Amino acid sequence: MVTWNNLDKLASFEELKKVERVNLAEVMSGENGAERVKSYSVPMAEGLAYNYAAKQVNEDVLATLVKLAEEAQLSEKFEELYNGAVINTGENRLVLHQLTRGQLGNTVTADGVDKRAFYVEQQNRIAEFANKVHAGEITNAAGEKFTTVVQIGIGGSDLGPRAMYLALENWAKKNGCFKMEAKFISNVDPDDAAAVLNSIDVAHSIFVLVSKSGTTLETLTNESFVKDALKNAGLDASKHMIAVTSETSPLAKSDDYLAAFFMDDYIGGRYSSTSAVGGAVLSLAFGPEVFAAFLEGAAAEDKLSANKDVLQNPEMLDALIGVYERNVLGYPSTAVLPYSQALNRFPAHLQQVDMESNGKSVNRFGEPVNYPTGPVLFGEPGTNGQHSFYQLLHQGTDIVPLQFVGFRNNQMETDVDIQGSTSQQKLCANVAAQIVAFACGKADENKNKNFEGGRPSSIIIGDQVNPKTLGALLAHFENKIMFQGFLWNVNSFDQEGVQLGKVLAKRVLAHETDGALKVFSDLLNI
Amino acid sequence: MVTWNNLDKLASFEELKKVERVNLAEVMSGENGAERVKSYSVPMAEGLAYNYAAKQVNEDVLATLVKLAEEAQLSEKFEELYNGAVINTGENRLVLHQLTRGQLGNTVTADGVDKRAFYVEQQNRIAEFANKVHAGEITNAAGEKFTTVVQIGIGGSDLGPRAMYLALENWAKKNGCFKMEAKFISNVDPDDAAAVLNSIDVAHSIFVLVSKSGTTLETLTNESFVKDALKNAGLDASKHMIAVTSETSPLAKSDDYLAAFFMDDYIGGRYSSTSAVGGAVLSLAFGPEVFAAFLEGAAAEDKLSANKDVLQNPEMLDALIGVYERNVLGYPSTAVLPYSQALNRFPAHLQQVDMESNGKSVNRFGEPVNYPTGPVLFGEPGTNGQHSFYQLLHQGTDIVPLQFVGFRNNQMETDVDIQGSTSQQKLCANVAAQIVAFACGKADENKNKNFEGGRPSSIIIGDQVNPKTLGALLAHFENKIMFQGFLWNVNSFDQEGVQLGKVLAKRVLAHETDGALKVFSDLLNI
Repeated sequence: MVTWNNLDKLASFEELKKVERVNLAEVMSGENGAERVKSYSVPMAEGLAYNYAAKQVNEDVLATLVKLAEEAQLSEKFEELYNGAVINTGENRLVLHQLTRGQLGNTVTADGVDKRAFYVEQQNRIAEFANKVHAGEITNAAGEKFTTVVQIGIGGSDLGPRAMYLALENWAKKNGCFKMEAKFISNVDPDDAAAVLNSIDVAHSIFVLVSKSGTTLETLTNESFVKDALKNAGLDASKHMIAVTSETSPLAKSDDYLAAFFMDDYIGGRYSSTSAVGGAVLSLAFGPEVFAAFLEGAAAEDKLSANKDVLQNPEMLDALIGVYERNVLGYPSTAVLPYSQALNRFPAHLQQVDMESNGKSVNRFGEPVNYPTGPVLFGEPGTNGQHSFYQLLHQGTDIVPLQFVGFRNNQMETDVDIQGSTSQQKLCANVAAQIVAFACGKADENKNKNFEGGRPSSIIIGDQVNPKTLGALLAHFENKIMFQGFLWNVNSFDQEGVQLGKVLAKRVLAHETDGALKVFSDLLNI
Repeated sequence: MVTWNNLDKLASFEELKKVERVNLAEVMSGENGAERVKSYSVPMAEGLAYNYAAKQVNEDVLATLVKLAEEAQLSEKFEELYNGAVINTGENRLVLHQLTRGQLGNTVTADGVDKRAFYVEQQNRIAEFANKVHAGEITNAAGEKFTTVVQIGIGGSDLGPRAMYLALENWAKKNGCFKMEAKFISNVDPDDAAAVLNSIDVAHSIFVLVSKSGTTLETLTNESFVKDALKNAGLDASKHMIAVTSETSPLAKSDDYLAAFFMDDYIGGRYSSTSAVGGAVLSLAFGPEVFAAFLEGAAAEDKLSANKDVLQNPEMLDALIGVYERNVLGYPSTAVLPYSQALNRFPAHLQQVDMESNGKSVNRFGEPVNYPTGPVLFGEPGTNGQHSFYQLLHQGTDIVPLQFVGFRNNQMETDVDIQGSTSQQKLCANVAAQIVAFACGKADENKNKNFEGGRPSSIIIGDQVNPKTLGALLAHFENKIMFQGFLWNVNSFDQEGVQLGKVLAKRVLAHETDGALKVFSDLLNI
């Protein structure tokens, strides 16, 4: 059995605080810097690599981080998780999103069924359904093929699937596996649904309603919005909708849907991209083979996360360095900066995964913790961010640790040579330059043009954004966040912090308010 | 003459640190809370109001903030700025973005011309051009109307115009003034341009090349990319492109463009949405009248910013409270949360305006400052954010001050009644509920379900996102950021922090690297 201790109860954490700080600008300069870039790199799945040369670590810090990983029993805790322990204690649930893409340990049985078999069964049902849609065997009432898929969901039912769709859309077009366009409706702002509906041909659209509980207010509201639109177009809504939900939800056996595909309580919304939540829309958009390759990449990375050799485990190492930055060096936020337009909304997805998982003030036992937990996470793709908020990252008063992602090749293979280099080369040159600029800085007598350096970053480098590398990248961050949750001793798999707002919003709509809430409600004409 | 002092040299700042802290949960409860919501509100332009009831202020804090505003000479500094002083000392430039939308003070003459007349002339030239395009008097070589406008630009030439376009797109469609669709190419990642080009009909597209200097590498690269595409389609690129640039740039008199419209060195990129940079694309997309209304809203808000009565000046008040939160209460980041899908990318734009303006470590005289300056800023629209990162905002270990924006009405006027309320009512109920949930919290014996409260927010409330309110909203944040720069005594109008990365990237492309940079370049196959 593992022991769950607060971070500040661990001897190795106390030790870590005493290890001499690394002067990043110094160690990254000259030949020493070149050596670091070569050696401080860990292979990931699908040809990716995690390079942490520009982090404020050295052999002493790393040795202590390894001790911390062992004392915190990170490997053992992950092993318990993937073997089906009740890791989500607050909600008394198993945590099985990794099982949606592969079996890492023992057979996991819950609710009387082999859960791996259950997830595979849902994938197969989705694949069969998607193939029939693509083949024109499942059509609209007029017997015409569906050309657009629209996901209706919010939070985890939106951000992950949307980010993955955008990441693979152009790759799929280039590689001949683009089946149909996907659109997403999430916000309860009626303009969101209205704008999407105005942009599509509803008669040839299939809608995927995603809600695990079948009770998410925003999603059910948007479903009604869509049903009205279908009805107004003289269409039978039940012939245009499928549901992704839990087997026990009111949506599961409703005649309102062409079909229902299932997830369960062991898949948190923010971890559901590899379940039926991502599976339905991605399989419809790109075909089941693409979704399967995505799962394959994620499963391959999960295997590396199970490696007990800390320095060969990219997710564990990334997690440990992040905790060192947050709890020893005291950096309160972090930025994710993919140098790939395809990963446009990947930071927005990670923002949920990270901040909703580890933005907690109590430990697994409901006791307040005495140290900072999850940081603020934000990001935009490079090079766009360079022309936006990088000023603060380079010369602001606070240090923000950075997570770069870069790829040697673009997706569409169209490029142009200007001033002796291609756009892709310019893109890559920029990310390389940024790492060194942040780490080493550059002295200038004009202090306004002075760069102190000492600003840490890591980079994940790969060949191209494709289904497999995307799966590996997603699993990397999911598992990093899991390990950080273990280190902070928080439950990374519940989200009680979202409840109070829901309760008060209901009260406003029922006009059962007083005090400040009543006045705000009046000001907003509710 | 005004005096430029560091924040920590001001007596009122020392006083501010000693004022007793406000217990937000307490003051926002009961009838006292209701009274605060009614009284802690300042009218803005175009029917908007800035409400700061849920900020950690009371009469004592406010009185000291007023002293601080006076001691820091905020009004006088703004007056110098709009009367044409060289406020951007680092680059020896005037700061005239407010002049693009109205004349607040004396005639400003620079480079031998009346600058207000110059900006108006450019607006008129753009209006005339746009009207001719819409009327089919300026067409493609085949004499056919242009149907799509594509902006090519990065940073300030992209984020602001894009955010404004998205904010008004559905409003314009609903109100019969939608003229043509706009698209944006920004990233040097070749997949960005390729995807946009694949999504449009190039033969009927007009491209707006935006670069003040005419030398922005990403933008010139993307221009070549687009020219290749036009050439491959058998089209004459010069008949499909206009330029927005400075009069002295190489693009200004080139035969490569149908026309050139001008901005100048006194308009920072991130402040250029109300100049020709925003003017060309927005006038083409929605017509010059819509752009004029947008400027009118901004000008009206600028006037309020010039109000010397601090408590009746929404921008100054917002700035002061932000500095109190950053430098006295010690909060390192801030979130902007518009409850409007139309303002989808407004936070990304503000991220640039704020972080690039005030993410500085030296004061106007190039001396290091001893206090934190600009915070990290991030945000996504509500209700989407509620299902993403709000968990951390409610229950994380760090407090993040919040800036809500809410509107009584949606833009498209299509709505649906579910469970006794419309989507718009649900949207508004949620923002009202969030303010109170963050401020007051809710005690629970189960500490995992406990909400401590005491998390500050403000809200800007208006009727609807339309050209005028959007202009006012933009000016609010621009001017708030300007006042904060005055308080921190930094130059908010340069961006030296972006230079080093550019220099190193060029070196990588020229293969003139060694050490870490050489190894990273090799790893990325450059």
